[in-house]
Amino acid sequence: MYNRQFSRRDFLKTLGLGAAALTVPGALVTKAAGKTKPNFVIIFADDLGFGDLGCFGHPTIRTPNLDRMAAEGAKMTQFYAAACVCTPSRAGLMTGRLPIRNGMCSDKRAVLFPDSGGGLLQSEITIARMLKKQGYATGCIGKWHLGHLPPFLPTSHGFDSYFGIPYSNDMDKIKDFRKKGFSMFQPKYEHYNVPLMRDEKIIEQPADQNTITKRYGEEAVKFIKKNKDNPFFLYLAHNLPHVPLFASKKFLDTSLRGLYGDVVEEIDYTVGQVLDTLQQQGLAENTLVLFTSDNGPWLTFKDHGGSAGLLRDGKGSTWEGGMREPTVAWRPGTIESGRVINEMASTLDVFPTIVELAGAKMPTDRTYDGYSMVDLLSGKGKTKRNTMYFYRGTQLRAIRKGPWKMHLYTKTEYVGQKVRKHDPPLLYNVEHDPSEKYEIGKNHPEVIENLQKEIVKHQETIKPVPSQLEIPLKKD
Amino acid sequence: MYNRQFSRRDFLKTLGLGAAALTVPGALVTKAAGKTKPNFVIIFADDLGFGDLGCFGHPTIRTPNLDRMAAEGAKMTQFYAAACVCTPSRAGLMTGRLPIRNGMCSDKRAVLFPDSGGGLLQSEITIARMLKKQGYATGCIGKWHLGHLPPFLPTSHGFDSYFGIPYSNDMDKIKDFRKKGFSMFQPKYEHYNVPLMRDEKIIEQPADQNTITKRYGEEAVKFIKKNKDNPFFLYLAHNLPHVPLFASKKFLDTSLRGLYGDVVEEIDYTVGQVLDTLQQQGLAENTLVLFTSDNGPWLTFKDHGGSAGLLRDGKGSTWEGGMREPTVAWRPGTIESGRVINEMASTLDVFPTIVELAGAKMPTDRTYDGYSMVDLLSGKGKTKRNTMYFYRGTQLRAIRKGPWKMHLYTKTEYVGQKVRKHDPPLLYNVEHDPSEKYEIGKNHPEVIENLQKEIVKHQETIKPVPSQLEIPLKKD
Repeated sequence: MYNRQFSRRDFLKTLGLGAAALTVPGALVTKAAGKTKPNFVIIFADDLGFGDLGCFGHPTIRTPNLDRMAAEGAKMTQFYAAACVCTPSRAGLMTGRLPIRNGMCSDKRAVLFPDSGGGLLQSEITIARMLKKQGYATGCIGKWHLGHLPPFLPTSHGFDSYFGIPYSNDMDKIKDFRKKGFSMFQPKYEHYNVPLMRDEKIIEQPADQNTITKRYGEEAVKFIKKNKDNPFFLYLAHNLPHVPLFASKKFLDTSLRGLYGDVVEEIDYTVGQVLDTLQQQGLAENTLVLFTSDNGPWLTFKDHGGSAGLLRDGKGSTWEGGMREPTVAWRPGTIESGRVINEMASTLDVFPTIVELAGAKMPTDRTYDGYSMVDLLSGKGKTKRNTMYFYRGTQLRAIRKGPWKMHLYTKTEYVGQKVRKHDPPLLYNVEHDPSEKYEIGKNHPEVIENLQKEIVKHQETIKPVPSQLEIPLKKD
Repeated sequence: MYNRQFSRRDFLKTLGLGAAALTVPGALVTKAAGKTKPNFVIIFADDLGFGDLGCFGHPTIRTPNLDRMAAEGAKMTQFYAAACVCTPSRAGLMTGRLPIRNGMCSDKRAVLFPDSGGGLLQSEITIARMLKKQGYATGCIGKWHLGHLPPFLPTSHGFDSYFGIPYSNDMDKIKDFRKKGFSMFQPKYEHYNVPLMRDEKIIEQPADQNTITKRYGEEAVKFIKKNKDNPFFLYLAHNLPHVPLFASKKFLDTSLRGLYGDVVEEIDYTVGQVLDTLQQQGLAENTLVLFTSDNGPWLTFKDHGGSAGLLRDGKGSTWEGGMREPTVAWRPGTIESGRVINEMASTLDVFPTIVELAGAKMPTDRTYDGYSMVDLLSGKGKTKRNTMYFYRGTQLRAIRKGPWKMHLYTKTEYVGQKVRKHDPPLLYNVEHDPSEKYEIGKNHPEVIENLQKEIVKHQETIKPVPSQLEIPLKKD
């Protein structure tokens, strides 16, 4: 569905006019010294595995739009989510800070639940809030999961508008779900009393999840068209392919991969809608689009969960499959088409990247965990990221520096394993051995020593903060 | 290194001349009714895993030439080798027949060895012999492994010329290899007394494997240039990344993936050389290039072996990882660029495909196991293949029909497992579950029954023949 279009910019070029010539007055406010601020679109999937896209090697999930996005942009093959589960991962993306720094993780509760009373604090600066100060229009569509009470919702965190569900699509199960013999494997949206919100209001409950991905896509197109003359930030956070799985009629029973494939292929379709719209509106060259996911596949749910490809383990785990995500970056004219970026990067790097491109400055009153990807994406330079920290809750389970990954603790969640402490730690070279199969600590004691020093340095920067995930909902 | 070139054909077009206008007389013999017969290039890797190319999802092996080949051509995601080990797989590719039909398999010896006296019989018709009758120039470069005695060599099987090694690169180990403390993990070519042959003559022994991939690439370029005015068939069968691993100076220590990556990236470079040459010579649109491998990765050799990506197991196994190969087909103007072909296909289908494109006819005196891919590749139709048989030696271990794969016997080779018989058989849906994780036989007794009937029908077509792999070398 996604074709190269003759862009508005091309059209102006053929008329011999610069982009500024036809600029409408409303757009002027966002331009400084003749330079248009770029737009940003983040498309975020939920529980999508490293191996679940065609361009990342899946044999039976067809993702022509993401494949095309990668062919015209860059595939990023060592890109990490900020955490291995939903809420902390999203907090990391939105703030550029590890969730351990702002209370968005816990050892008691993996994520926020409908009975949670906490959320992302107002003291935190989201990408949206930062961009509002730069004159951006900001829209959030999809799953939020950083708090569902008023002070924590997207519209309280810098977004002009919100359309989506505030937490996971499997929450708020109806009473006696199990007793009644219901199962996530036979999904019916009526079994999940999940609210669909417009800004701060619930507009549908239970949310009709059959059409939810379709509606997110439509809302995204509307948002882009509405804001085409302003710089904008669109955060399109699909709540699928997290179980329970739903697809609209057009996609249901169409994928070779079964229901999970239907769902991913519908998400892929919305990616095409976004890119199409950007091209039709002449915005492609001035918009950075990033596609990635919050954490690895939920292997517990068998063929209703995804695949981490050649990576070990999935969601909830600090093995690579839990946090390395299938990532595609696109900005025609800036990102060379067909590039494969093998360098390490993370959702933690999105905040500083957007800060730099929007001409803002990094706040200096707090610690950040990201590094701008501007040079990395344009091909003009390398990333400054050479380490990555792998937390589960507040526990630092692993560190990666260069190709070396060292595990202090591991847990293979989907087989019900308990946390295992490793002393000496386990060591892998994840560039030689991305599947983390061959432990080589004995041969590299100096690497282990070096990584342990890095951990000490890192931990000195961590100050204890109360967990937002453990705060209960107050009952009136 | 591989760039789109202004082709000879394009050049003729700008002059307003058809391709025939500048045809040299020597080429006329190959044209009937003004139609030029197409050229064929098969690039065959050895022990390359389904997950070992960038375009098939490997995060740290960089294969820009194969990625570009896929972007300009088609990626085939359910493409099977004819067998899970070397000799039988190659026999299947060359003849379009399962090795069980022509004695090119055995339960005692997996493949041919230097002490073998047998090989592919003269009564078999190879692709090369079939094409010779159609006036083709035929060249074999690389590993043969269908018999190293004179009656079995490429030049006795329809190839005009041969440059390569007659069996695997780990054979003919020097005396006391183990006693002397040598290891495949510290490869030195002097430890393998493998002969390098030109036609029927040994020209180097031991073959200098450091430069062998480089030399194969150069020979391939020479062959194409020499035969540009004739229809030709080039079989470029790299003997790597089969262990022991070797790469030339230009590639050694350059890959993020280590030595295995160096090796695959050098093979990728030769793919670029071939495509470049075809484009420079104006032959691209008239040449079908197919890249694939003989069997899955040799997992026994840890990080010196490859990765089957999300597939289960590797070389020697009839799980998917043993026989499903990363496959790319390229013919600009005929194969739509950027296609992903999810249908089932096999190296067994290459013979009938080439027969059809070369305007020949299928021999009627024997049973074939392949189906022409002409319509599948051009997008004009579907394949007729709906079943695939998975043999190890003479034992039928599994069958696939549609998405259903049924295992009668399994063996996970690299962990030293013994053959396990399954009664009832194991059943998987390999399109829903390509990793063969979720056995679902109990829910589908009718599928098992149907597959068992297919097996009976199939086995009625198999006539016992003596094994060529068990014939010892006669000592004079």
